[in-house]
Amino acid sequence: MGMMDHRFDIVDKAAFRNGMSRLGSAVNVVTAMSGGKRYGFTASSVCSVSDSPATLLFCINRASSCFHAFENARHFCVNTLMPGQEDISNVFGGKNPWEDRFELGEWRDGLTGVPVLANASVSFECELSNAVDEATHRVLFGRVIDIREHDEQATLLYCMRRYLNG
Amino acid sequence: MGMMDHRFDIVDKAAFRNGMSRLGSAVNVVTAMSGGKRYGFTASSVCSVSDSPATLLFCINRASSCFHAFENARHFCVNTLMPGQEDISNVFGGKNPWEDRFELGEWRDGLTGVPVLANASVSFECELSNAVDEATHRVLFGRVIDIREHDEQATLLYCMRRYLNG
Repeated sequence: MGMMDHRFDIVDKAAFRNGMSRLGSAVNVVTAMSGGKRYGFTASSVCSVSDSPATLLFCINRASSCFHAFENARHFCVNTLMPGQEDISNVFGGKNPWEDRFELGEWRDGLTGVPVLANASVSFECELSNAVDEATHRVLFGRVIDIREHDEQATLLYCMRRYLNG
Repeated sequence: MGMMDHRFDIVDKAAFRNGMSRLGSAVNVVTAMSGGKRYGFTASSVCSVSDSPATLLFCINRASSCFHAFENARHFCVNTLMPGQEDISNVFGGKNPWEDRFELGEWRDGLTGVPVLANASVSFECELSNAVDEATHRVLFGRVIDIREHDEQATLLYCMRRYLNG
């Protein structure tokens, strides 16, 4: 890339957050195990990367209180929520103690032992394949080794700072 | 990372695509200039990375016919569509010649000359900050240098292989 001369200023945090509130997305709880304990947080920054091999990414703030768990985990699970699971989104998006979070919803062990939400819209169990730091965040890439889908065709979405059903 | 022993198989393409169809998202047209010509393609793999500094990412297949334009561009624009712009999503997601695509919608020049959709839900004009290859794709990171928002609070979403309004 070389040095950039930055002829243009970067937009401020408030403008960016307002703009991003329009970029609707699914609501996901990303989970991992660390030291025998379960960790998970609500994430909207999850996307598909490639289907060959099946690869996705998610972003996590390196200052997050659960960053250490994801930094050291070889496996993780992206659990995309169903309509009606707004309470799970809220508890995993708040400041609640880690184990308390898993009292909401029915959680099972995946192939690799990661927490999988039994009635998620879809869960993607992944093996970490790459990690890249960018600004305050780390982007974690995973190869998808197992997928579980809900019988019902529905997903919880979040757009314009409100939930809606997809 | 070291070598991985791959105790688990990676899921196949069809299973991955079916699972991913549940990960609803906004619909975006990502644009850039190359050799004085306009390029753009429909992308769902766009997400927020950081608000300090304001940073987003999108994924592009390195085998895409417009990859060369994004590979060499210093700036790009993520145009998040409004409900009613399904035709723009479809034309930029198909095989149409590059200039023909821009006949749909009203396109203006951004600060850096990139094509900006005048009545997008939101457009994020970016300066490339980093690029990482993963599987078949390249992940491009951009610092957001300008944001334009539609007066109306709405976004076009895509989930379960159908459009809906967010």
